[in-house]
Amino acid sequence: MTSWPWLWLNLCWLWAAAASGGKILVVPVDGSHWVNMKVIIEALHSKGHQIFVLRAADSWYVKESSPLYTSITISTESGFEEEFLTEFVTRLLEIQRGEKSLWKRLQLEMEQNEKVSEMNDMTANMIKQIFESKELIQSLQDAKYDLVLTDPVVPIGVMLAHYLKVPLVLNVRWTSHGEGHFAIAPSPLSYCPLVGTELSDKMTFFERVLNVIVYGYMEYQAIQHVIPRFGRLVTEYLGPDADYLSLFQAADLWLMRVDFVLDFPRPTMPNVIYMGGFQCKPAKPLPQDLEEFVQSSGDHGVIIMSLGTLIGEIPHDLADEIAAAFAKLPQKVIWRHTGRTPATLGNNTLLVNWMPQNDLLGHPKIKAFVAHGGTNGVQEAIYHGVPIIGLPLIFDQRDNLLRIGVRGAGKIMDIFTMNEDIFFQGVQEVLTEPSYRNNMQRLSRLHRDQPTKPLDNAIFWIEFVMRHKGAAHLRTESYRMPWYSYHSVDVVAFLLGLVLLVLGIFCAILKCMCSACLRTKSKRD
Amino acid sequence: MTSWPWLWLNLCWLWAAAASGGKILVVPVDGSHWVNMKVIIEALHSKGHQIFVLRAADSWYVKESSPLYTSITISTESGFEEEFLTEFVTRLLEIQRGEKSLWKRLQLEMEQNEKVSEMNDMTANMIKQIFESKELIQSLQDAKYDLVLTDPVVPIGVMLAHYLKVPLVLNVRWTSHGEGHFAIAPSPLSYCPLVGTELSDKMTFFERVLNVIVYGYMEYQAIQHVIPRFGRLVTEYLGPDADYLSLFQAADLWLMRVDFVLDFPRPTMPNVIYMGGFQCKPAKPLPQDLEEFVQSSGDHGVIIMSLGTLIGEIPHDLADEIAAAFAKLPQKVIWRHTGRTPATLGNNTLLVNWMPQNDLLGHPKIKAFVAHGGTNGVQEAIYHGVPIIGLPLIFDQRDNLLRIGVRGAGKIMDIFTMNEDIFFQGVQEVLTEPSYRNNMQRLSRLHRDQPTKPLDNAIFWIEFVMRHKGAAHLRTESYRMPWYSYHSVDVVAFLLGLVLLVLGIFCAILKCMCSACLRTKSKRD
Repeated sequence: MTSWPWLWLNLCWLWAAAASGGKILVVPVDGSHWVNMKVIIEALHSKGHQIFVLRAADSWYVKESSPLYTSITISTESGFEEEFLTEFVTRLLEIQRGEKSLWKRLQLEMEQNEKVSEMNDMTANMIKQIFESKELIQSLQDAKYDLVLTDPVVPIGVMLAHYLKVPLVLNVRWTSHGEGHFAIAPSPLSYCPLVGTELSDKMTFFERVLNVIVYGYMEYQAIQHVIPRFGRLVTEYLGPDADYLSLFQAADLWLMRVDFVLDFPRPTMPNVIYMGGFQCKPAKPLPQDLEEFVQSSGDHGVIIMSLGTLIGEIPHDLADEIAAAFAKLPQKVIWRHTGRTPATLGNNTLLVNWMPQNDLLGHPKIKAFVAHGGTNGVQEAIYHGVPIIGLPLIFDQRDNLLRIGVRGAGKIMDIFTMNEDIFFQGVQEVLTEPSYRNNMQRLSRLHRDQPTKPLDNAIFWIEFVMRHKGAAHLRTESYRMPWYSYHSVDVVAFLLGLVLLVLGIFCAILKCMCSACLRTKSKRD
Repeated sequence: MTSWPWLWLNLCWLWAAAASGGKILVVPVDGSHWVNMKVIIEALHSKGHQIFVLRAADSWYVKESSPLYTSITISTESGFEEEFLTEFVTRLLEIQRGEKSLWKRLQLEMEQNEKVSEMNDMTANMIKQIFESKELIQSLQDAKYDLVLTDPVVPIGVMLAHYLKVPLVLNVRWTSHGEGHFAIAPSPLSYCPLVGTELSDKMTFFERVLNVIVYGYMEYQAIQHVIPRFGRLVTEYLGPDADYLSLFQAADLWLMRVDFVLDFPRPTMPNVIYMGGFQCKPAKPLPQDLEEFVQSSGDHGVIIMSLGTLIGEIPHDLADEIAAAFAKLPQKVIWRHTGRTPATLGNNTLLVNWMPQNDLLGHPKIKAFVAHGGTNGVQEAIYHGVPIIGLPLIFDQRDNLLRIGVRGAGKIMDIFTMNEDIFFQGVQEVLTEPSYRNNMQRLSRLHRDQPTKPLDNAIFWIEFVMRHKGAAHLRTESYRMPWYSYHSVDVVAFLLGLVLLVLGIFCAILKCMCSACLRTKSKRD
């Protein structure tokens, strides 16, 4: 007899767990975040799991009906407005490239802050509506979900997971509140740069000072604005023992859209699963007209340009400068541009409303990618080994592109001060200097050389959490300690006190003995 | 056209790299450490890599000739003596179970320290012999190894990797110098217990005090004894810029024999690959006589006992107590015992000189495992889901078993104070209380549920390092910073100074203004 019966039982059990499929409640965030979540939902759906998606009635990206999932629609507003972002970037470009008015810049920032505050109000409203609808809460409880999968940009998912007592998996690029790692992994500020600082992991003294200041500011913002606002709701609906930050720290897994081929190495925790580049896939053949255009480039090859789905249009003067620079190149150019046709457009440049970006990046004729630096585009460029000319605009785009720059796999330009000549020289440099392509192809080799594909790995661990009803063994609960215990301040104070006490007693005894000696001596004298 | 040509090129390149096989220099440590290293060597050999093993002429475990590897024998002593360890444990048991003489205990400790010092001398000798033999060094250089794989208990391998400028992979359970993680991953002492403390990750205040004291002691030992001793050799042979500790921190990968199913969750780094339980494998059929003995146990099942390869014999009185307890059980017992047959031996107990431990643990009739708590035995018990009755003796055995105890998957007993009744009750408890078996089987399910087998994963990453000539993108070099920069002490001091300066200037201005006011006033008066 061997151990086969036991192995067999084990396999049967795993098979049964897999075959029955789990019930997953997904609480996504609208916009580009949903694009990422959808990749995971598709994979989970294809493995036979039932997906339920909680969405606001006015959601733009998260459609009500889908063959992938069943919607749970809350009759509230999400506060997410794509136009706001598009308009914000357009105005930012206009101000920064034009009069550079500090006043207008401040006005824009204030509008942005107002918008964020408005979105937070909407989120708070949504939380209230969910938790005060007895019917909805009862139906969520009755559904007996196996897992809550959520984006921690807003705390709805983590609150529901806590309330429903269901294992929790987060899908994260940076958040919550700065850099997700900071919530669970020790993060020495000396080599863990915060997002938005545009710093690398090798900092000068003053860069480290900046990193510490930004950290302080972010902590202040969280403590002053975010935590009290949602903290009240957490206490109201989850009871006085629930703590806002702990809801995130209690996640069984953090699926992080981080890839150390791009990102800087840093401390991590066993319950962090890295899935950077999880959406990357081999290129499909191009539509015939596009393939013909690409082939017509001959040995020179093709450059593609896209500033992301949000930014189809850019100020006319900027479009003219870029088009003029492209016109001087022997390469062909495919440019996603939805605005007015630039006056300087060359014959070599094809304007499109939409492009099959991944299929183009995977085409051997593509020589360079002019990109805004969104995480997905950058990861796709790494996957296909295409060097980047970076034109960062907002969010984490500068940080993403900084990483590409540090690795010598692309050139970052300042879109606010750029003109035809500067842009032309930048593109030329990336095309003619072989190191850019070589470095990017090295990153590509590193990225593709993994024991399991990032998406498969993410799905494995999501299913792991469902099979075992959590992943407590990978998660430390040390965060529940008060800060002075976590950092051993109390222990060090105690040991110092002990040393002082011993020294004190020793000195007292010495003093007593000396005075006794003196007394004896004076008596004898 | 799609990206297939590029994919194809990529695959060809990977295939060529794999097919040609790498040249690996292994610098092992003798004894049980070699047993672990050999598992990896076998796997690497089966994948077509050429292995070269550096060994001392008197090595016991590392044989000169093997079909797996080519030996490079140094005509020196390793200092490793199996008998010393066996004798040490036997004497420890005699003292602690007998007269409990503090003096004899201290004497034993001193002998142990002398032995460690002697082994360090031998290591230093071996280093000298290697680096001063121009012929040997030249031949090592000419061999152009792709990788150095070593056990960092001794610094020979890390020194050679540095000298030969070859990527470095470490195979580690705890070391170097305490707990390997401490050398590269932030390790808050509030929840990262040091090996030897027998503490869990949830500590009381005084346990945390103990952990800090032990850490201080280990640092002191390293700074006072280990680092100066080998540091001199490092400077002598690798130049004044080489630093002892940095040699370890420069490793491309740390293959850690750690499994969070057993070990406590803690911060880690991207270049730590966990391969705890890498040696575990399904059970093979038992030899016929053993199978018959096992089957004869009926529904009661079998208990197996082994205190590891080093400890076949235990003091007579202890053996008698254990045998008497076994004799009272309805189960059958297989006991690895090489000493005198105990007077109290029951009919149900089979004494053996050696047992196929893994095959027995995987047999469905095995109900419990009486073990000393070596990492491999504990991992095999987890793999097969067999609860443990732990009798820890030395090294990390107490720490391993503490982890099993915390998870409720076994009962730990004090072999120094144990008698027949206590042992009988302990074994009975594990046999009759279902939670022990249930908990161990839960650990087994968790351990077996991994995206890749631990050994496959380890081999993947070793080959990864060879393919890419290192894994720099997974390794931080922040350890090269001075401690005050690493911990941002300089930044905080600077910012505090700045605040004080501003306050000072503000106060000075205020003072000037006040005195100016007073002067004006007094003039007016």
